[in-house]
Amino acid sequence: MQIAVGIDIGGTNTKWGLVTNKGDILKEGVISTKAYPEAKQLVDAVAQNLQKALDELDNHSLIGIGIGAPNGNYFNGTVEFAPNLSWEGIVPLQQLFEAHFDVPIWVTNDANAAAMGEMQYGTAKGLRDFLVVTLGTGLGSGFVVDGKVAYGHDGFAGELGHTIIDIQGRQCGCGRKGCLETYVSATGLVRTVQQLLQENQLPSTLEDNALLTAKRIGEAAHTGDELALAAFDLTAQKLGLALANAVAITSPKMIILFGGLAQSGDLLLLPTRQYFEDFLLNIFKNKVQLVNSIIPAHYAAILGASALVWNAT
Amino acid sequence: MQIAVGIDIGGTNTKWGLVTNKGDILKEGVISTKAYPEAKQLVDAVAQNLQKALDELDNHSLIGIGIGAPNGNYFNGTVEFAPNLSWEGIVPLQQLFEAHFDVPIWVTNDANAAAMGEMQYGTAKGLRDFLVVTLGTGLGSGFVVDGKVAYGHDGFAGELGHTIIDIQGRQCGCGRKGCLETYVSATGLVRTVQQLLQENQLPSTLEDNALLTAKRIGEAAHTGDELALAAFDLTAQKLGLALANAVAITSPKMIILFGGLAQSGDLLLLPTRQYFEDFLLNIFKNKVQLVNSIIPAHYAAILGASALVWNAT
Repeated sequence: MQIAVGIDIGGTNTKWGLVTNKGDILKEGVISTKAYPEAKQLVDAVAQNLQKALDELDNHSLIGIGIGAPNGNYFNGTVEFAPNLSWEGIVPLQQLFEAHFDVPIWVTNDANAAAMGEMQYGTAKGLRDFLVVTLGTGLGSGFVVDGKVAYGHDGFAGELGHTIIDIQGRQCGCGRKGCLETYVSATGLVRTVQQLLQENQLPSTLEDNALLTAKRIGEAAHTGDELALAAFDLTAQKLGLALANAVAITSPKMIILFGGLAQSGDLLLLPTRQYFEDFLLNIFKNKVQLVNSIIPAHYAAILGASALVWNAT
Repeated sequence: MQIAVGIDIGGTNTKWGLVTNKGDILKEGVISTKAYPEAKQLVDAVAQNLQKALDELDNHSLIGIGIGAPNGNYFNGTVEFAPNLSWEGIVPLQQLFEAHFDVPIWVTNDANAAAMGEMQYGTAKGLRDFLVVTLGTGLGSGFVVDGKVAYGHDGFAGELGHTIIDIQGRQCGCGRKGCLETYVSATGLVRTVQQLLQENQLPSTLEDNALLTAKRIGEAAHTGDELALAAFDLTAQKLGLALANAVAITSPKMIILFGGLAQSGDLLLLPTRQYFEDFLLNIFKNKVQLVNSIIPAHYAAILGASALVWNAT
């Protein structure tokens, strides 16, 4: 049987899986990213784990390895200045893996891998123009244009989270102000609640302390907490506008929301859909499906990375 | 010799030309769009002119016809609900021309045709990722992604002028508020001057009357008129931000400004470049060329339309 490896390198953990072209994960594993401060150490450890797993599998043929990593560059096979990893500068990740495996190896960032996953195994199967937005600590995006992930001239396209929506807005980790992800992300939602708690008289069980997380805000909203609901509404408004503007540029058939904040389900999806339709230019109204991903969150990153392999074959 | 026809249908005039693959225009003509209120009448008249011109040309072979028209749809060969034409609903423009010519015929909108023109004859020759922004009465755009114009799922991608930059902003002709083109376009510049004349004490020779045009504002700015310069600066700021945000999405190697307002030369280009670089995300800084088009304005629309043919062959 043909097998692709999917590897997801995160700031805390690195997960891997052996994946069929149907998206079945035959074996999987996880190791601590933080335990290996240097890239080569991490790669060596992952490679050892992978080789052992492959050896235990009967009658398979490894056809490629796909890797999703923060600031992963598809063109160069590198990870460049990743803010959440201890690696410095430009790391030749593809090359480091090639020392262990004699198969084609691809690198991309998490959101582009997610887009690949949706195209190979998810809701976007068969679509040529769609958009995946990953809502976690930050906001990532993968734009698929005419059947291919748009990488741009340098491999870094798809940074919807770093489009500026208010030049006098919130300070962003990127050094600029008012980026979309300072509003629309798990951390953005927390900041919105903090702001509403200061400015607003809405009744709420939420307090501005160390326990205030996106998850906690979601739970409060589910019980009807007015301030939590107001925070989701504001998030939906900003997301709806950003998506309507993105549609004006690439005109996708579908937009798939993905990641931690999207798991708040209808809490975010329903109001976002309303704002989105309201903000759309006439020629795009009632044409674009806005949905949550159906890929199980736990496996999504591995599946997305493995889809790089199937997509290239 | 192989010949492509380029046709540019505008609200006032329809221009056509017989074009070589180098961009030489062997013959050209123009007829009044307004003189033919129905699409079929206009097509019949253009076809007659074209046939005559082709008959006069020795030793040629017509290989295709490209048409740029407002709201032209590449996928369907139609013009759909064009606001500046007297045609109603959806007009099967490609089909109407096929009644006269037995060659492949393509339809697209003006800005996508401009992008094709830049790729075939202009500054973008050989580039796979770039963006053309046409600055006229409105703001049009053509995004080239991995060597192809991005049409999206429905043929209508590339409406950068209708991304909303301020939900409480200026009323737009599309029915919504705060679209980019209400600020960054010839009419947007006039509105900005009108606003500054009301709000601002800057010395100026400009007055809010029927003579106030983008051309007149450009002339005033060239003589150092402070209010006119402030209006260009504000326009540059909004354009610079919109372009920086567009780069975050498709990561083009080059952005080409084109059309009436771009002919104000450095007046708009230089301040836009500064704002643009300031607003760019770190990984994109000093990577993207922002230039004015070098295609002569008079021929640009015909050349762009004809490039549809060469691009497809």
